[in-house]
Amino acid sequence: EVSDFDLAAIYVSDAQYNRNIHFDTSAQAVRLYLLYNHWLPKVLLYFFILVDLSLAIFEDPAVVPLPTWATMLVELLCLLVFTIRLVHYAKVIPRDKFWKDPKNICIIAILLTLIDMIIYGALKATDYYAVRWSRVLRPLLLVNVTEGRQLRRAFRSIRNALPEIFYVFLLFMFSVLIFSLMALKLLGKRGLKTTDGSPYFTDYLEIVFDLYVLVTTANSPDVMMPAYNSSFLFTLFFILYIFINTYIFMSAFLAVVFNNYKKYLKEEVRQLVRAKRHKMVRAFAVLQESREEGRGPVVTHANWNQVVRLVQPSISNPHRELLWNVCDDKNQGFIGKLAFVQLADLLNIEVITLKSRPHPLQSLCPAFYLSGPSRLLCRLVQHRGFVIVYDLIILVNAVFIGLDEENPMIANSEWVFLALYLFRNTLLGQQRQSVFLNTSSCPVVAGGYTSRQILDIVFILRVLRLIRVVDSIGRFRTIINTLIRIGPAILTFGQLILVIYYVFAMVGMELFKGKNNFNNIASSFILLVELTVVNQCSGFATVTHMSARIFFVLFHILVVIVIINIFVSFVLEAFYVEY
Amino acid sequence: EVSDFDLAAIYVSDAQYNRNIHFDTSAQAVRLYLLYNHWLPKVLLYFFILVDLSLAIFEDPAVVPLPTWATMLVELLCLLVFTIRLVHYAKVIPRDKFWKDPKNICIIAILLTLIDMIIYGALKATDYYAVRWSRVLRPLLLVNVTEGRQLRRAFRSIRNALPEIFYVFLLFMFSVLIFSLMALKLLGKRGLKTTDGSPYFTDYLEIVFDLYVLVTTANSPDVMMPAYNSSFLFTLFFILYIFINTYIFMSAFLAVVFNNYKKYLKEEVRQLVRAKRHKMVRAFAVLQESREEGRGPVVTHANWNQVVRLVQPSISNPHRELLWNVCDDKNQGFIGKLAFVQLADLLNIEVITLKSRPHPLQSLCPAFYLSGPSRLLCRLVQHRGFVIVYDLIILVNAVFIGLDEENPMIANSEWVFLALYLFRNTLLGQQRQSVFLNTSSCPVVAGGYTSRQILDIVFILRVLRLIRVVDSIGRFRTIINTLIRIGPAILTFGQLILVIYYVFAMVGMELFKGKNNFNNIASSFILLVELTVVNQCSGFATVTHMSARIFFVLFHILVVIVIINIFVSFVLEAFYVEY
Ligand code: NA
Repeated sequence: EVSDFDLAAIYVSDAQYNRNIHFDTSAQAVRLYLLYNHWLPKVLLYFFILVDLSLAIFEDPAVVPLPTWATMLVELLCLLVFTIRLVHYAKVIPRDKFWKDPKNICIIAILLTLIDMIIYGALKATDYYAVRWSRVLRPLLLVNVTEGRQLRRAFRSIRNALPEIFYVFLLFMFSVLIFSLMALKLLGKRGLKTTDGSPYFTDYLEIVFDLYVLVTTANSPDVMMPAYNSSFLFTLFFILYIFINTYIFMSAFLAVVFNNYKKYLKEEVRQLVRAKRHKMVRAFAVLQESREEGRGPVVTHANWNQVVRLVQPSISNPHRELLWNVCDDKNQGFIGKLAFVQLADLLNIEVITLKSRPHPLQSLCPAFYLSGPSRLLCRLVQHRGFVIVYDLIILVNAVFIGLDEENPMIANSEWVFLALYLFRNTLLGQQRQSVFLNTSSCPVVAGGYTSRQILDIVFILRVLRLIRVVDSIGRFRTIINTLIRIGPAILTFGQLILVIYYVFAMVGMELFKGKNNFNNIASSFILLVELTVVNQCSGFATVTHMSARIFFVLFHILVVIVIINIFVSFVLEAFYVEY
Repeated sequence: EVSDFDLAAIYVSDAQYNRNIHFDTSAQAVRLYLLYNHWLPKVLLYFFILVDLSLAIFEDPAVVPLPTWATMLVELLCLLVFTIRLVHYAKVIPRDKFWKDPKNICIIAILLTLIDMIIYGALKATDYYAVRWSRVLRPLLLVNVTEGRQLRRAFRSIRNALPEIFYVFLLFMFSVLIFSLMALKLLGKRGLKTTDGSPYFTDYLEIVFDLYVLVTTANSPDVMMPAYNSSFLFTLFFILYIFINTYIFMSAFLAVVFNNYKKYLKEEVRQLVRAKRHKMVRAFAVLQESREEGRGPVVTHANWNQVVRLVQPSISNPHRELLWNVCDDKNQGFIGKLAFVQLADLLNIEVITLKSRPHPLQSLCPAFYLSGPSRLLCRLVQHRGFVIVYDLIILVNAVFIGLDEENPMIANSEWVFLALYLFRNTLLGQQRQSVFLNTSSCPVVAGGYTSRQILDIVFILRVLRLIRVVDSIGRFRTIINTLIRIGPAILTFGQLILVIYYVFAMVGMELFKGKNNFNNIASSFILLVELTVVNQCSGFATVTHMSARIFFVLFHILVVIVIINIFVSFVLEAFYVEY
């Protein structure tokens, strides 16, 4: 039998972490669900996903070659782990819910991978040519494991923006096609030559591709040069083209994504709040005790305590009492539904307990510490000016780090800075930084070359503390706070980019084996980063033809037009909220 | 004496065109003000501004060289025209207002230009080296003529965004400096060499500049190559750098500009509405007739008519009656203040009078036109399907234009399309398009090469009609409408860019005489376009040192960080309003 407290604790915990699993409430299913949410199987799952994804490093074309049987064996192990996790999930939720869950694309992915491995093994054994096509399915696991909520949300927001993006894209392509037609008619018959002597702007499809790439400004001066040299007026044609297609249409893409993002974000937030409330209401229903006629049911302090202890065993007694006092502000000994529902949010608030740590001297030699000159020093050290002086010292140190170290005076100045930092720490009674000082001063004594570099890094870490100086200025704090708020979302975007890069790298390595820098997974990733940042397709697209161009255009649409615009929308919204 | 009607008409006209000149209400000043707002002096002023700006084409370094005395003489003439305009302005507004008007920076600009011309002439006469430094002041005239309201508003919005941009920029530079320091420490001592054999990342200031340029992705693969080749791990350093500085900080700049733009735009619109209302209230005060005790003053239909006739003499009688009926919706024969105030907005609404033009045949040969088969044909032509068929014909024509014309079948197909268009126009009784048909069919008969190109252009113009096809699809119409709304603002941005390019071209030509492609005003403009679009500074900045770098960085900040972001904000806001 499941106790009411266990069940209530699970609902509260699900609300706290925004979990959306409709688990079975039978005793066995609840026990399995608790195990399912345990950190160990989750970490294991992520570990095996990582192993599965990184198999690409060892598979042909490999960075570190391993025999096929070894990678296949590891992959089988990974598949086994994923299957166990899925079976576990199937036992947790009701049978009918399981088959409708879209997350279970995983099952298809696992089956397809198995089939592919068998075919590949058979073909390899009989020395035929074989392709491991199921490798593009691997990132699906990253998206569809039950923990990838944020990532799935990101994919949903892409899917929601797609129709709007598609309409603008059609107009954009229409504009590119019209301009290509004009270019063909204006420039095609003038007998112009490109720098390598081939005819210039004579083939319609070539022009369309060249002008598409011009939108990314990757081939910018080269593609226009023959026209420039022919007549000054053609520059106007290209300026008009770049203005309309690079500036107006790319801004239009951002605008459409941004509008969609705002609209969709609101809906997401609303749904999250609704789901959270729903779970808390269910927890309340389990715990409630009815009162006399006409007055709503309540939860007593004792029951509340027991649930909170189950949900978060690590919480301290004073912290729990603090939370109770917030809920039961009238000090009645029980709380109603409204007060109970806010518990999930209260648990997410971090309570910082400030302890005032006395200076070591105060306990070692109180007479000296409390003497007149010592007290004056204390007041000096706690003065704002002292902080400012040390911020200035860090600044000067930063400048010295940038200066030429061959100069002995500058090399010796590092000792002065070390002494100054040591002095400050002694005054403040801090021990934390002295660890740094030890690691940094030892290498200087050793005098080796690599230890010098360690010293450099330690100094750089100290320079990073300049961020604290910057943060103390009010105007900068808003900006820095906003940038910090962006932090967690960046992890999601990182996963998103990883998924898309992985798929494109897999396809790219099959399509352009050894060509176009698709030599192995590492160089493929670097190439894709290059494509994202500078759209440096110029060298890339000329080697192989049609397939490389389609590959480039698809990658550009997906990464530059969709994902980067979603990221920019996210930053825009974060700044809008903060101001 | 100024009649009340004249005065009221001036107030209404000022409200209608959002003019903000606090003119004197004396008889002479009002007459001068009417002349001041006449289109002829305005066009003349713009013409002389254009002449003044385009003097750069003929001055050393010249595209088309002219003797110095000739350009100086023309410039003197321009200055004379500007002075006359300023004197005229001074006579229109009260003396004390004139000296406080910030627009009168023009006076200083004119005086400085005169001084510069005298110095330059004297130095040239005695064969000394001289610089025409006052040429950078010329665009000031474009900004500060009283008609440049939109442009001044754009500059104000830049000035308003600057403090916020500045704080983000400081943080951004801080990040660049920190990363440069790390790059120096991580890479400087490894003895790496760039492709041309010089030491790699050993000088701090060089690194700072290289990394700044990396933000624009202009030197992207080259600057990272030595580090790539040394160790795979350094790629992570650069990816982190590009991520933080290109993606996060560039988005932050956009976010700050966008927020500022929205905030400021609202304030601007509020002020415009307030000023407009204020002028209309003054016009009402001039025209009002008091009624019996306790009821507010009114304007009679006759007075209203006279004022509207003065404000807009071109307005037709039915149009004016329509406007009156809108104002006087209770048909009282007079209107109150509230109804009068909306007149300025009503006058700005375009009333389209649709005239049904009969088919020529209807008057030439009515018996035939009204016969049974002819009527059937009329119904067919007016059917939606007929329009769709002709849209498809245009589409097929567009494809044929793109195909190879050497093929005689395709060349002859143009005749078929011409015949089809002619047939349609005959059916619809349109004459407009036949002009096109004439210009396009004649060259074919002549058969010359340039006439063939004219034919091509005519066909392209016909292909542009495909936009109409696209516009008829609802989903596209919103997007196209938004893009069209952006239209007028683009002119303002064009002027803004022109002002900034002009100043940078002038400074660039003095600093890098004949170097870095600053050969004359035309090549300078092309170079600046290149800098804007691709940040192709790589070849540019290496020739001359520090000055070229500062030039590049300043240009990048002003154009890419400020102006392009304002443009993107504008597009974002336009799309937000439309959706
Ligand atoms: Na670029």
